[in-house]
Amino acid sequence: MDDVLNLFRKRRSIRRYLDRDVPAGVVREILRESCLAPSAMNRQPWRFSVVANRPAIRRLSDESKKNLLAELEANPASPLDRYGDLLRNPAFNVFYDAPCVVYVCGPREMKSVQADCALAVSYFMLAAAARGLGTCWVALGADVRDPALLAQLGITPELRIVAPVTLGYPESVPEPPARSEPVILGFLR
Amino acid sequence: MDDVLNLFRKRRSIRRYLDRDVPAGVVREILRESCLAPSAMNRQPWRFSVVANRPAIRRLSDESKKNLLAELEANPASPLDRYGDLLRNPAFNVFYDAPCVVYVCGPREMKSVQADCALAVSYFMLAAAARGLGTCWVALGADVRDPALLAQLGITPELRIVAPVTLGYPESVPEPPARSEPVILGFLR
Repeated sequence: MDDVLNLFRKRRSIRRYLDRDVPAGVVREILRESCLAPSAMNRQPWRFSVVANRPAIRRLSDESKKNLLAELEANPASPLDRYGDLLRNPAFNVFYDAPCVVYVCGPREMKSVQADCALAVSYFMLAAAARGLGTCWVALGADVRDPALLAQLGITPELRIVAPVTLGYPESVPEPPARSEPVILGFLR
Repeated sequence: MDDVLNLFRKRRSIRRYLDRDVPAGVVREILRESCLAPSAMNRQPWRFSVVANRPAIRRLSDESKKNLLAELEANPASPLDRYGDLLRNPAFNVFYDAPCVVYVCGPREMKSVQADCALAVSYFMLAAAARGLGTCWVALGADVRDPALLAQLGITPELRIVAPVTLGYPESVPEPPARSEPVILGFLR
């Protein structure tokens, strides 16, 4: 019980990374453990594309920023508005200069795809934290549309990106942000 | 690293429970740990309704079965078809006679609600497994529409049920089902 609590506390969303690569074997181990997550009807629909190359990660960040900006310009009332300045800043890398990004994908038409992939992401983040690695689910990095980039990632048209997750050694581990007490709507006994 | 792997292996979807109640304090502890999950922009949108009363759980099971059957009858080609016989069996309790069910809910209109709640559910399942408790995410139990039952659960109209999760002491812990190796679409270095 103490162990699980320590693990949960150890996992933080990390936005500053050391300039140190994650060995491919470690990435594969973490992916194997991610697949122990439950899924609807044990379908295990998750698929992974790993990018451990900084120029490629930068191109993917630029692609997602470009598409989000176009969306924001088409619809200025979009909730993306709060990210407008960041998205317009050419220096901003949505992936925080992490040395590795894993795209967690699943079948576009599967009803449970978001929940199933989120469960695998949760295992991914905890398996990484147990190894002293940091992660961050970067929703702003999911908007990859360029067919050439998608092909490079191996993401075929029937798949969608549910979660791009950064992976790397943390420069430092920040204090956890404040947590609310659980909101319990009812407790029927 | 070994600990996290042991924890992941210990968590199984449990469908047979001992006739033994889960102390309310333990449920609250697990809910507190569930709230350590990450969420989009740290919004922590999860809400919980706990039912630890067998007749109430049975009524909720019957309500969900009734609504799913009506859906299946309206659309015989529905993927629910595979559950037709089970749903028509009056003895079948979608919650496997668990002594406790927790409904994880979130704002109906929030785009990230499914992913955020799935992350909390994952923490819930692991926090329970660390205590020797079993859980199962029962999608068939989510179809509660009766306003009186929803009011009893404290689930207001702006909220939706993302995941009903059973909680109880396992009668036995089954062997893990087969897992596929991670499908890695690409590994760019």
